Amino acid sequence: MSEHVNICEVGPRDGLQIAKTRMSTDAKVAWIAAMAAAGVREIEVGSFVPPRVIPQMADTEEVVRRSLEIPGLTVIALAPNLRGAQNAYNTGAHKISVPVSVSEGHSRANLNRTPAESVAEMARLMEWVKAQPRRMEVIAGASTAFGCSIDGVVPTAQVVEVTTGLAKAGVDKIMLADTVGYGHPAQIKEVVRAVRDAIGPVLYGLHLHDTMGLGLANALAGLEEGIRAFDSCLGGLGGCPYAPGASGNVVTEDLVFMLESMGFATGIDLPKLLEARALLHEGLPAEPLAGQTAKAGIPKTFRRAA
Amino acid sequence: MSEHVNICEVGPRDGLQIAKTRMSTDAKVAWIAAMAAAGVREIEVGSFVPPRVIPQMADTEEVVRRSLEIPGLTVIALAPNLRGAQNAYNTGAHKISVPVSVSEGHSRANLNRTPAESVAEMARLMEWVKAQPRRMEVIAGASTAFGCSIDGVVPTAQVVEVTTGLAKAGVDKIMLADTVGYGHPAQIKEVVRAVRDAIGPVLYGLHLHDTMGLGLANALAGLEEGIRAFDSCLGGLGGCPYAPGASGNVVTEDLVFMLESMGFATGIDLPKLLEARALLHEGLPAEPLAGQTAKAGIPKTFRRAA
Repeated sequence: MSEHVNICEVGPRDGLQIAKTRMSTDAKVAWIAAMAAAGVREIEVGSFVPPRVIPQMADTEEVVRRSLEIPGLTVIALAPNLRGAQNAYNTGAHKISVPVSVSEGHSRANLNRTPAESVAEMARLMEWVKAQPRRMEVIAGASTAFGCSIDGVVPTAQVVEVTTGLAKAGVDKIMLADTVGYGHPAQIKEVVRAVRDAIGPVLYGLHLHDTMGLGLANALAGLEEGIRAFDSCLGGLGGCPYAPGASGNVVTEDLVFMLESMGFATGIDLPKLLEARALLHEGLPAEPLAGQTAKAGIPKTFRRAA
Repeated sequence: MSEHVNICEVGPRDGLQIAKTRMSTDAKVAWIAAMAAAGVREIEVGSFVPPRVIPQMADTEEVVRRSLEIPGLTVIALAPNLRGAQNAYNTGAHKISVPVSVSEGHSRANLNRTPAESVAEMARLMEWVKAQPRRMEVIAGASTAFGCSIDGVVPTAQVVEVTTGLAKAGVDKIMLADTVGYGHPAQIKEVVRAVRDAIGPVLYGLHLHDTMGLGLANALAGLEEGIRAFDSCLGGLGGCPYAPGASGNVVTEDLVFMLESMGFATGIDLPKLLEARALLHEGLPAEPLAGQTAKAGIPKTFRRAA
């Protein structure tokens, strides 16, 4: 049996939040269902942010409710703070992802607070979550862990400090996010090692962007350090409204192609996943889609991992 | 001091041979000079194939002669056979690259002979080259070493067999080429190890295509196996007229960004290299250029390797 790698599709959240046009709720749910039918088991379907901040996410409550009806799907929503976590919980989300910026500049621009204040907020959030009767997993996303378009270089020690604070606050898992896509493979390895030394298995996965074309090379570097969970976006959608110059997330279908080719099982059916691009395109016709697998087609050498 | 990685720019040959329009000789030379000025020390400037086969290469003799006047540049030309090698030699090329397909299907389509016949031709070619008063290095390009769009999977044993034959024929160096871009990182490592076990340091580098988006991940895999030489194309130009589905080469500027970020010295000035894209675009305005570094700009975190 092949080793499993977990892919969390974040397109309906990270991908849509900076789209110039809006995708209807029906189109979102159809797209989410198509990806789930292709074997994607975890999807971040929306974000409990105020609609005036990110209008594309205004229907998150409905999208979460309807996604919960899709069999076998783990429904994740982004929650920027305690109130977001409460809304996600009340809507029934299985898990929430909570962004915390490692760099000061991105933290102030994106969340209007310092990294230390975010860690303190996380402790309050975890206290509330753990007091509820239903278990809801909390994944902290450590943004700008590999560079910041505002602050520039983000020292590894700073990533260790913030992630150590988040682990102490009691989060279930931490994703290291290359929010602006400036990271390189040697850095990925260095930071993963340092963070794992500090917090052990609470370090869960990588959230990578393809800004400089290094998305898959960085994923490979993470794999080689034992990382077995990745966020990605169908068609390479994505970006960050508070990270000038950031571009799309690592492309789900290209990541699946790489992983399955290398013998890692993702549980995802690549031809079916490519079909889900049609629904994404229908729902968001003005948005250009990236991805080499869709462009070139699946080569005849491809064999899905056992 | 950083370890050096050698980049050979193959755009003026591999990149232009499938371009829909033709680049003028003056534009080619201006583009080559701009890349040399950015620190690119090896450029494959053309191909001594019959002009009826690849009209874009009809001016190769003049391009070679004029490139020889660029200070510090190693001028490489492709030669498909003995006659091509003789023409390259007589024109003064410093090195030639000679393609030999590992897979039967690509070999017949591209070179109209079997791999074994190519190896025999290489022995004759080497005999002639070594009998000349001037030394001209011969680099064999082992095409379709990681998969073939005609034959599908190319067994590692077949790559070992063909490269062993080429090493016995006396070639100076061998590049393993992922001509159609179907290779994946685990395969790159496996094939590099097997070929190195068989022929030692005659295995020189990798020629990668980005068909499935894995170009840089595959380069990273090669780097980790000790490979320190790569072919690439500015703007990700390239393809193969006899390899349906193949797309562009790994993008030189993105490769340089990755290598320098990781602390490998390429000798190339990235901002100047990006400027050379303007000359490429002027000379070939209809051709779309790939590359994330040009799109996103060089991030403020970037430091050139020492």
